[in-house]
Amino acid sequence: MCSRLEKTRDYKRRVMESFDRQQVMKTIQASIRDVRPGEVGLEFPYQPKLTQQHGFLHAGIVSTVLDTACGYAAFSLMPENAAVLTVEFKVNLLAPAKGDRFRAVGKVIKPGRTITVTEGKLFSHTEGAESLVATMVGTIMSVYDREGVES
Amino acid sequence: MCSRLEKTRDYKRRVMESFDRQQVMKTIQASIRDVRPGEVGLEFPYQPKLTQQHGFLHAGIVSTVLDTACGYAAFSLMPENAAVLTVEFKVNLLAPAKGDRFRAVGKVIKPGRTITVTEGKLFSHTEGAESLVATMVGTIMSVYDREGVES
Amino acid sequence: MCSRLEKTRDYKRRVMESFDRQQVMKTIQASIRDVRPGEVGLEFPYQPKLTQQHGFLHAGIVSTVLDTACGYAAFSLMPENAAVLTVEFKVNLLAPAKGDRFRAVGKVIKPGRTITVTEGKLFSHTEGAESLVATMVGTIMSVYDREGVES
Amino acid sequence: MCSRLEKTRDYKRRVMESFDRQQVMKTIQASIRDVRPGEVGLEFPYQPKLTQQHGFLHAGIVSTVLDTACGYAAFSLMPENAAVLTVEFKVNLLAPAKGDRFRAVGKVIKPGRTITVTEGKLFSHTEGAESLVATMVGTIMSVYDREGVES
Repeated sequence: MCSRLEKTRDYKRRVMESFDRQQVMKTIQASIRDVRPGEVGLEFPYQPKLTQQHGFLHAGIVSTVLDTACGYAAFSLMPENAAVLTVEFKVNLLAPAKGDRFRAVGKVIKPGRTITVTEGKLFSHTEGAESLVATMVGTIMSVYDREGVES
Repeated sequence: MCSRLEKTRDYKRRVMESFDRQQVMKTIQASIRDVRPGEVGLEFPYQPKLTQQHGFLHAGIVSTVLDTACGYAAFSLMPENAAVLTVEFKVNLLAPAKGDRFRAVGKVIKPGRTITVTEGKLFSHTEGAESLVATMVGTIMSVYDREGVES
Repeated sequence: MCSRLEKTRDYKRRVMESFDRQQVMKTIQASIRDVRPGEVGLEFPYQPKLTQQHGFLHAGIVSTVLDTACGYAAFSLMPENAAVLTVEFKVNLLAPAKGDRFRAVGKVIKPGRTITVTEGKLFSHTEGAESLVATMVGTIMSVYDREGVES
Repeated sequence: MCSRLEKTRDYKRRVMESFDRQQVMKTIQASIRDVRPGEVGLEFPYQPKLTQQHGFLHAGIVSTVLDTACGYAAFSLMPENAAVLTVEFKVNLLAPAKGDRFRAVGKVIKPGRTITVTEGKLFSHTEGAESLVATMVGTIMSVYDREGVES
């Protein structure tokens, strides 16, 4: 028998264990803020080694964290035997990604057996003020029993 | 007087100098393969520190290199006083990004005074075979005289 | 002197006059529900002549109404001498577009002098119940003094 | 026994029969130019009833024809028991869609059992000259045995 509490712990555990295997999250120094069913929050500090030519965070690094947040938001709703793969995403850069710290939130807007649609937002923090820097819409796929992509 | 050869050298020089200021390209160990008017090729090796949970290159790192290739493809056609900013991009992941080395190509498909539309392709190399891993469509903006974003 | 009330009327008038010139809106039988600064709502009925092979509304028709809603949401915030052009959009189809009537909402999430980013949602109505059918993210451009594209 | 010729005829027949059920294609007066494995060409005339406020073809109508071209390009490679659904697409508008006639081409760039990625291009014809007006990247899904969406 699986109690509700155990089930809750389980999706968190699955997200956190998979997140820990993403080596790039260590490179970015990203950590999990919170995991809820269908929603994942991440945070990470500014690092010069992740910047583009103007000293802002590179749009691709913004995308990296947003994709991880969106992917695990989808993963949190998937059955235990599913692996998660990103099919595609679109990122809009709304403002230069400058700041001391950044916060990313990924949310499921439409779950599905095969296809889950997600939205992500990246916020920058500068001296206490938070502002929206980028948005993502991502299409995530549940993959069952495919070699080489265990959850 | 500015000869044609000088002009050619000039856009290459501008792209290469700006590329050198992208710290994240050093982190990814990416280098320029070739710069032509409206087209930029980059290459970089597999590194475990850039991977997602299955050991493949993270989709966001794929996006980082594609965005740089597309951005500089657009930049190569811009006037000297313009800076380049990415407005948005869409990435489709066609296959797991595994391999020893990767090659990204960014091309302008529609140049414009303000908006330039680009396409990017990422190829992976494994034991001599090359395969298409991801595509990008990116919208790039020419910015004139905006504080903090010198070319 | 231009009172606040006159200014309000003015953006509504500009949106409604431009909307009336979109012949395709008549073909779709779409009408304006409401216009607020940075937000436009439209509605239209199901018509068999707009369907795809399964009898649902074609994804392109969904896109047509979403693009008009998003475009005018952006236009409502633009200065009087600007014309509005869509640079690009992405549409996610979340559910089959079936129903008696449909409602589209376009909102500005980031206004700008040149580039405005918008989000749209399409809802279907069937027997009183409303459900989300599709989302759009659109990049809209303000064009000044370009021949052939008066506002 | 199914000869190669019969198989060829079969995918063409399936595409053409499904296309004929898209009522919106009649409204747009679009017809099939050619169907090849993984590639579909369509054409249609300018009609004032499909225009936006400047008298150009509405971006959503451009999307409608591109989506049909891309969808059937994917469908042409699917097994007989599959139905085709669009998951999402992105459209870039490169130039005003004006002209006497238009031609759309949809191509598969990555086929898959579940997900097929496609690219579309829309060309306008004015007095014999052809120019690229818009591009699409579309993600198409093969659906098996789902109620209400027979191929």
